[in-house]
Amino acid sequence: MGDAIVDVIASCDDAFLTRHNLPKGSMQLLTPAEADTLYSAMGVAREMSGGSAANSMAGVAAMGGSAAFIGQVAEDQLGMIFEHDMRALGVRFDTPPLVEGPPTGRCLILVTPDGQRTMNTCPGASHELSADKLDRELIASASILFLEGYLFGPEKPRAAMMEAIKVAHAANRRVAFTLSESVCIAGRKESFGRMIDSGGVDLLFCNEDEALQLTGRADLKNALVELSIKVPTLVVTKGAEGAVAIENGERIAIPAAPVGEVIDTTGAGDLFAAGFLTARSKGASLERCLWTGAIAAAEVIGHYGARPIADLKALVKL
Amino acid sequence: MGDAIVDVIASCDDAFLTRHNLPKGSMQLLTPAEADTLYSAMGVAREMSGGSAANSMAGVAAMGGSAAFIGQVAEDQLGMIFEHDMRALGVRFDTPPLVEGPPTGRCLILVTPDGQRTMNTCPGASHELSADKLDRELIASASILFLEGYLFGPEKPRAAMMEAIKVAHAANRRVAFTLSESVCIAGRKESFGRMIDSGGVDLLFCNEDEALQLTGRADLKNALVELSIKVPTLVVTKGAEGAVAIENGERIAIPAAPVGEVIDTTGAGDLFAAGFLTARSKGASLERCLWTGAIAAAEVIGHYGARPIADLKALVKL
Repeated sequence: MGDAIVDVIASCDDAFLTRHNLPKGSMQLLTPAEADTLYSAMGVAREMSGGSAANSMAGVAAMGGSAAFIGQVAEDQLGMIFEHDMRALGVRFDTPPLVEGPPTGRCLILVTPDGQRTMNTCPGASHELSADKLDRELIASASILFLEGYLFGPEKPRAAMMEAIKVAHAANRRVAFTLSESVCIAGRKESFGRMIDSGGVDLLFCNEDEALQLTGRADLKNALVELSIKVPTLVVTKGAEGAVAIENGERIAIPAAPVGEVIDTTGAGDLFAAGFLTARSKGASLERCLWTGAIAAAEVIGHYGARPIADLKALVKL
Repeated sequence: MGDAIVDVIASCDDAFLTRHNLPKGSMQLLTPAEADTLYSAMGVAREMSGGSAANSMAGVAAMGGSAAFIGQVAEDQLGMIFEHDMRALGVRFDTPPLVEGPPTGRCLILVTPDGQRTMNTCPGASHELSADKLDRELIASASILFLEGYLFGPEKPRAAMMEAIKVAHAANRRVAFTLSESVCIAGRKESFGRMIDSGGVDLLFCNEDEALQLTGRADLKNALVELSIKVPTLVVTKGAEGAVAIENGERIAIPAAPVGEVIDTTGAGDLFAAGFLTARSKGASLERCLWTGAIAAAEVIGHYGARPIADLKALVKL
């Protein structure tokens, strides 16, 4: 469950980010007017379907897993593109489009020569997703409900997420959540903390920075200890330094999978989660789950766009 | 002046083309219903602005030339994408969008593992371009008016093209025309032949197949002799075998520029024309014009999409 968004990907230099006050590697929400201004200033772009959890589901399907996506587009051309790409991947996607209201969301992604991506999201219809759009049978049937932090920000989809968690847990299913930096800002952090404390999350994905922000601690080790007490499975991605998982007192660390040239880091975390979840749903060991995530992440940063191009199923050999 | 279209690019295998009765390497026009059916069957796609002459103008701008584009999008999301990409390249594009009528055109491009592209165009607003949308001052100010054969098919834009030629010649400017296979079908071939006979075209780009079809001859040599008598400058592209130009009795042939792996041949002819026209507008020799075209074409077939990615200006060193 996550943002239903089309990525608009363009290259830029570091000076462009500075000129537009965009912290490199960050994600910010833009108003439609702000998005139009930034788009006008951006270079030639290519459009590809995106969205963090949607990218993950694309990855799950590419690795031979069974995936569905819940998220909301509008009835417009970008929405049709998003729908097409989900279904073409074999991802079930039945959330009805928003008929009246803002257009399908888009994310203006600026890729600098070092491969880092800076994301500028105009969420549109995506953030109007409400609980009545949930397919409860679908959620109850899935072994894992996977939730994306970006969609936890705005009130309406946050309420829908809380409802989805109830449905999943009532059906005795597991709930996985990927922190996104926007979860960690004021207001959201507190409601997210309460959800974790109440046992809402069985498996938490985050990076080191998000772990620090969420716990409010200055020391990473302490932050991870705190989080690992609250969630049964904690998975922390560390970029080029690999990843670590803490589960039932067990702690496993792996290095990053080898990459050729880093072209565009968009989707690295999404594909890591995809690999981990696919392996887990097939009953693989914790270490194998980490490795599968690392291999999927390595594939996606070797090219433009946040969805796999290579034959991931063959690469991960699950 | 040409089609204003967004490309929807997906990979497929040869069996997919056979199943859908699509001759490899061809271009066909689809009704909206046919396009929807094919799109549903296609795999995951990426969207990039396209259109034959529009790709050429993108190339001219990338090589440091001064370019403008005349073509018609609709007032919708794909139209906004097309406009953005033209302007982001530095191509002047002021044709007002169509307010009521069909949506912005799209071209479903299927790329097979051998790098060949099969194009399926749903032209939409693009083929509703009428003569009253022409910017006559712009046409009169340009040293070369470049026309795309695909847009010569439908009646309304064909009339607009004939009008544009009049404006250009009245201002003592040159007219270049690129044959597209669709020019060569019944009805269009005759009106195009009349235009050539009346001195409407100063510079004609075509490939060998188009030369045979247009002249109705079985022998290539005779076809080129016939065409070279009718147009002051004839430029024939021959794929991997290079290109040849015939002008004022002079005949110059060059081999193709070296390419690494052929990824996607979409835009090869468009970028060849771009290189030739840019060099010509800067007063380069006929041989230099051919080489510039060959270098630009070689760049574009090394990656997905019909517009240059590398620094063409540096590559062609004009």
